[in-house]
Amino acid sequence: MSIEVLGFAAQSAKSPLAPFKFERRNPREDDVVIQIEYCGVCHSDLHQARDDWGFSSYPVVPGHEIVGRVTSIGSNVTKYKVGDLVGIGCLVDSCRTCSACHTGLEQYCEEGHTQTYGSLDRHDHRPTYGGYSQTIICSEDFVLKIPENLDTKAVAPILCAGITTWSPLRHWNVSKGSKVAVVGLGGLGHMAIKLANALGAEVTLFTRSASKEQDARELGAHHVILSTDEAQMKSAANQFDLIVDTVPYDHDLKTYIPTLALNGTIVLVGYLGDLNANSIPMIMGRKAIAGSVIGGIKETQELLDFCGEHNIVSDVEMIDMQNINEAFERMLKSDVKYRFVIDMQSLAKEA
Amino acid sequence: MSIEVLGFAAQSAKSPLAPFKFERRNPREDDVVIQIEYCGVCHSDLHQARDDWGFSSYPVVPGHEIVGRVTSIGSNVTKYKVGDLVGIGCLVDSCRTCSACHTGLEQYCEEGHTQTYGSLDRHDHRPTYGGYSQTIICSEDFVLKIPENLDTKAVAPILCAGITTWSPLRHWNVSKGSKVAVVGLGGLGHMAIKLANALGAEVTLFTRSASKEQDARELGAHHVILSTDEAQMKSAANQFDLIVDTVPYDHDLKTYIPTLALNGTIVLVGYLGDLNANSIPMIMGRKAIAGSVIGGIKETQELLDFCGEHNIVSDVEMIDMQNINEAFERMLKSDVKYRFVIDMQSLAKEA
Ligand SMILES: [Zn+2]
Ligand SMILES: [Zn+2]
Ligand SMILES: [Zn+2]
Ligand SMILES: [Zn+2]
Repeated sequence: MSIEVLGFAAQSAKSPLAPFKFERRNPREDDVVIQIEYCGVCHSDLHQARDDWGFSSYPVVPGHEIVGRVTSIGSNVTKYKVGDLVGIGCLVDSCRTCSACHTGLEQYCEEGHTQTYGSLDRHDHRPTYGGYSQTIICSEDFVLKIPENLDTKAVAPILCAGITTWSPLRHWNVSKGSKVAVVGLGGLGHMAIKLANALGAEVTLFTRSASKEQDARELGAHHVILSTDEAQMKSAANQFDLIVDTVPYDHDLKTYIPTLALNGTIVLVGYLGDLNANSIPMIMGRKAIAGSVIGGIKETQELLDFCGEHNIVSDVEMIDMQNINEAFERMLKSDVKYRFVIDMQSLAKEA
Repeated sequence: MSIEVLGFAAQSAKSPLAPFKFERRNPREDDVVIQIEYCGVCHSDLHQARDDWGFSSYPVVPGHEIVGRVTSIGSNVTKYKVGDLVGIGCLVDSCRTCSACHTGLEQYCEEGHTQTYGSLDRHDHRPTYGGYSQTIICSEDFVLKIPENLDTKAVAPILCAGITTWSPLRHWNVSKGSKVAVVGLGGLGHMAIKLANALGAEVTLFTRSASKEQDARELGAHHVILSTDEAQMKSAANQFDLIVDTVPYDHDLKTYIPTLALNGTIVLVGYLGDLNANSIPMIMGRKAIAGSVIGGIKETQELLDFCGEHNIVSDVEMIDMQNINEAFERMLKSDVKYRFVIDMQSLAKEA
């Protein structure tokens, strides 16, 4: 017995996303059943749909920026009740017993976390399918409470783009007076600017395009530096306590490391590949390059609560599920300010 | 007026070190005059003598692991008196006013610190000459107190090899229960093992040569891992809170990063050049690559006091000043356990 769900899936690396009916498990005792209202569109969705990383297993139902309402709960669920506004991000489970899990760092679970899509469930070993669908079922321990005061559809990207930048801001203790720079103004970058600003930091955007200055300032950047301008980069030397580098493609860290302050860190949150960096400025200023991936459940809840208090949401462009393939193409050209969000009511047309 | 001093200098990148008479300033009010008894031989000495880094200015009188006795003091000196056993490391001055200097991090002085040799004095703009000489003159604020209970000649390398490894051990909070690995068993590596062990860490040496195991254990390593053995490296995954990487030549960080624990750091203390590393294991475990250079004056004094309490010195091979060129050649072949130290009495033969 199981629940039939309608979604959109890629059936192969080359096929566009299209309607797909699949089954989800019947809720277990600790499960929450969620009717999905909105799902953000993350670059990972595109990469996994197209097998860009080489480990996709089809069909792929993407989506890990999920917001919806609880429609039923398992018999042991205590944290949520029917009607609650809730979210699911990139994780739906982890081992729950390793030292990472015990300290709320499920994203670094020693046994590997269960991803919202593209993983196998730890109990029934069936594939996980993401938020490009009507309904999702998840252990209450991996469900987030969404503040009711926010614009619901614009909350979705907080679940991945938001937490991916929040986690390093918090881990490296960004607070009032910190000097933070952000590299890249996309889905992640625009959240990094908003969040660093709200934490009280003095925020700088590094960009290669002068045309982004106005937007960056409206999002909360106090300064904008054209990274292609040597004089501007030179005058930014030894400034930043933390640089949040959101750029997903191969790029030159040598440009940015000299702008770190003594003991500063540049944290990569979007780039998978070999580093283009040199040790000399690192040694001469005890500077570091680090990596960070998404965030833990406790930290994600903390972020959502923070966003509720500070009235922070993502800047979004709404699309129907049927337009996802076009949206992917526009994302590849960075033609979105700053995150597509799917209105899941549009799926009803397919039913 | 000035003081004539006999030392050994390189007159060009191609010429061997040879006797050289030069003048040192008359002591200023805050200066201490030190008769040098011992001077350690650091790889930097060789590199600067031979202009390997391209910025040497000749003549070069190397030497920044200096131990000797105070023979006279300036009128305002309060910390030292004639007869005191003292040391000088890599720094003889800094701006003293920037925020780095104010927090005891003179090695990261925003205006650049004055090196013991190869710099220009901040006041008279004359070149600084190092410890391969009879006498050195230095502001008391950059002079270290040497514990009298230690074997004096074996203390010298603590002033560079020791502090270079101590500073990252302390900065990254190594203490009882920490898991520390050391890459490379030379002058720096052997001090890193001794110091990490004395701080209570569980210490592992990474080496490419199985023959070093016995020595490493005698120095205080609890484990030795052959970095060329894939199975051993695999079983060391996700272990180390800190890796102190002392290797000075181009090498593959990709081997070591996976052995870092969650939130672990590999700190480069000897390598100047491009990094051979990949972001994926960094992102998946919030791991970092950092750099660190020598240490500040307060931290160096702390180290010397710690060595006095724990009876830690360097393992040294004594040489006469006249044998320095041969010693350089042996250093290039790593044929020394683990640091050459010059007995400066040997200079008397040249007088
Ligand atoms: Zn994502
Ligand atoms: Zn776990
Ligand atoms: Zn040295
Ligand atoms: Zn300074």
